[in-house]
Amino acid sequence: MQFHKRRQSIIFEQQPAILSSAAIGGKKESEGPLANYFDRLNTDTKFGQKSWEKAESKMQELALDTARRKVELQYGDIDVLFGGDLLNQCIGSAFALRPTGIPYLGLYGACSTMAESLLLAAAAVNAGYARRAAALTSSHFASAERQYRFPLGYGGQRTPTAQWTVTGAGCCIVGQNAPHGPFVRAATVGAVTDWGIKDANNMGAAMAPAAYATLRAHFDDLGCAPEDYDLIVTGDLGQLGKQIVTDLFARDGVKLGSVYNDCGTLIYDLQAQDVHAGGSGCGCSASVLCGYLLSQLAQGKLKNLLFCATGALMSPTSTWQGETIPAICHAVAISAERR
Amino acid sequence: MQFHKRRQSIIFEQQPAILSSAAIGGKKESEGPLANYFDRLNTDTKFGQKSWEKAESKMQELALDTARRKVELQYGDIDVLFGGDLLNQCIGSAFALRPTGIPYLGLYGACSTMAESLLLAAAAVNAGYARRAAALTSSHFASAERQYRFPLGYGGQRTPTAQWTVTGAGCCIVGQNAPHGPFVRAATVGAVTDWGIKDANNMGAAMAPAAYATLRAHFDDLGCAPEDYDLIVTGDLGQLGKQIVTDLFARDGVKLGSVYNDCGTLIYDLQAQDVHAGGSGCGCSASVLCGYLLSQLAQGKLKNLLFCATGALMSPTSTWQGETIPAICHAVAISAERR
Repeated sequence: MQFHKRRQSIIFEQQPAILSSAAIGGKKESEGPLANYFDRLNTDTKFGQKSWEKAESKMQELALDTARRKVELQYGDIDVLFGGDLLNQCIGSAFALRPTGIPYLGLYGACSTMAESLLLAAAAVNAGYARRAAALTSSHFASAERQYRFPLGYGGQRTPTAQWTVTGAGCCIVGQNAPHGPFVRAATVGAVTDWGIKDANNMGAAMAPAAYATLRAHFDDLGCAPEDYDLIVTGDLGQLGKQIVTDLFARDGVKLGSVYNDCGTLIYDLQAQDVHAGGSGCGCSASVLCGYLLSQLAQGKLKNLLFCATGALMSPTSTWQGETIPAICHAVAISAERR
Repeated sequence: MQFHKRRQSIIFEQQPAILSSAAIGGKKESEGPLANYFDRLNTDTKFGQKSWEKAESKMQELALDTARRKVELQYGDIDVLFGGDLLNQCIGSAFALRPTGIPYLGLYGACSTMAESLLLAAAAVNAGYARRAAALTSSHFASAERQYRFPLGYGGQRTPTAQWTVTGAGCCIVGQNAPHGPFVRAATVGAVTDWGIKDANNMGAAMAPAAYATLRAHFDDLGCAPEDYDLIVTGDLGQLGKQIVTDLFARDGVKLGSVYNDCGTLIYDLQAQDVHAGGSGCGCSASVLCGYLLSQLAQGKLKNLLFCATGALMSPTSTWQGETIPAICHAVAISAERR
C-alpha cells in the first residue's frame, strides 16, 4: 500500500464499490422533488412505533435491511458497520443494530455522519479489514425538534434562516472487487472549524466555513479543481449556507457555478414546502446520496460526484453556555466508473 | 495486505506503535491507588473553566497536548484524530479540537471510546492512511451526573450497584516504524449486545455480556486463550460486572482467574473511597490505559495486554421510554515487544 503524504486526504487504490444503498423518508420527503428516488416513504411519522425516537431507529433498521436485501446479503456477510445519528447517545443506531449482530463502530459527526461513515467503510474495505462494510445514519424532524429546540406542541415560531430536519435514513454497503460501481475513489477528512457563529437557527452560516475548508483541502491534496467533478454537493447548508460557500470561493477567484449544489436545497421545494432555508439533519444528505445521487451515478447521468456532508457540533448545553458553533465537513469522491 | 476472513478481528501486520500517551485526572483520582501514573491531576474539578462541560473539554485538550509534547510533535504532525465522549453531541471532543486544526473523525461508543478510538487510530496507521493518528476521550463526574442522573445539588442517594464516573481523560498517539513499543497488534470490534437489563444504576450487569461476547470472538478469531495474555482488562464493569464476566467464562469451563481485571476496580480503592461498585465513564479505562497500563508495558512489567473497553449505549430518553440497555465492547491487543 502506497504511503500518502497528503495530510487530510486518502486515495482508495482498491476502489471499493458501493454494492447497494437504500433511502427511507417520511411524509414531507414524499411531497418533495426527490420522492421518486426513495426506497420507502412512510406518511406515518412514527413508522408504527410508540415514540419518535423509536421511529428514527426503525428507519435505520429499514435502510439497512433494504440495502442488504437488494444484493441478497445476510447480516453475517457485513463485517463492520459505521453509524450514528443526532439523538443523544446515538440511540437511533444502537437500538437499530441490536438484533443484527453486526460488529459496530459508533460515530458522532452530527449531519456529516453519512460522509464520515461512508469514508470509514470504504477505508475498512480498501485496507482489507472488512469484506463488506456498511454506513448508516438517520434523522427525524420530531425527535430533533424535541431534543434541540422545542417540543412540537409548543408551536414555536421558526426564523427565516432555520432549516427543516429531514425525516429520513440512508445506508450504503461497500464491498471489494465489484464488477460495477459506483466506486469510492478518495476522501478528505475535515477538521473542526468555527468562525464564531452563535445563532443555532442559522446552521448554514455556521457550517459553510467547514465545507469551504474541506473542499479547499480536497482540491489541494488531490491536485484537482471543481471542474473535475460534474457535481459537488454539500450536506445540509441550505440556501444561505450554499451562498456563503459560493461567495468564499468567489473571493479566491474560483467560480463554483452550477457544478455546486446542496442536499438541503435539493430535497424540498423551498417555495412550496415552507421549509425556510432548506433541509437539514443526518438524514438529509444520507437520503439524497443513497437515493437520488447514487442512482444518477449508477445510470451514468453523473460521472464524478464529490459528496461533502456537513455537521454542526454544538449541543443545546454548549449554546446555553454561550459557546459558538463548531462545525465539520468530510468529503467523499465517488465515480461511476473505475479509473 | 493480507485479506482476513476473520469476521470481527483485525491483525495489524505493520504493528503500529503507541508513540506517546497521557492521562489526566481529577481530585478523586488523585486519592486513588493509581494516582502516581497520571500525568496531571487537578483538584479543581472545574479545571479553571466556568462549567463542568468546559472542564471536560479542557481535560481532553490537556491530554492531547501532554501526549504530543512528550514526543515533540506539532498538531500538524497528527494526520487524524479519533475521539468522543459521553456528553450530548460529544461537545467535550469538538470544543477541545477547535484550536488544533487536526482532521477529526468523531466517535460515539460511550465508555468503549478509548478502545474504539485506539483501534481506529491503529487501523489508519497500519493501512498507511495516516503517518500518526491520535485517540482521545474523557468523562467528568459532575457533567455526567447532571446529564444522566440528577444535578449534584439534588443530593440523590446512590444504589449499591452504582458506579462513580471518573473525572479523567486519556490520549494515545499511534505511529508507524517506531523503534520501540508498545505495539498495537490486533483488535476485535464488538457488536451491540443486550441481555435485557433495564436498571441504569447497574451498568456493570448491562455491559458484562458485551465484554464476554467480544472476548469470546477475540479468542475464536485469533485462536488464542486467556493465558496468552498477562493481563485482560475490561473498561468499567466494576465489581459486579467483573464477577459476571468471570462467571460467564466459568460456565464455559474457562477460568479467567488473576489474569483478568477491570479498570473500574483498579482506579479507586473501593472500600476507602465510597465509590460503590467502582469507577466508570470513558475516562476510566482511558486514564487507566494511558497512565498505568501503558507504563507497565513500557517498563516490561506487562508483555501482552488485552484492553477491552465497555460501553452502555442507552440514553436517559431510551430509559424513560422503558428500553433495556444495549452495550458494546471492543478489544485491543497491545504488546510490549514486536512479534
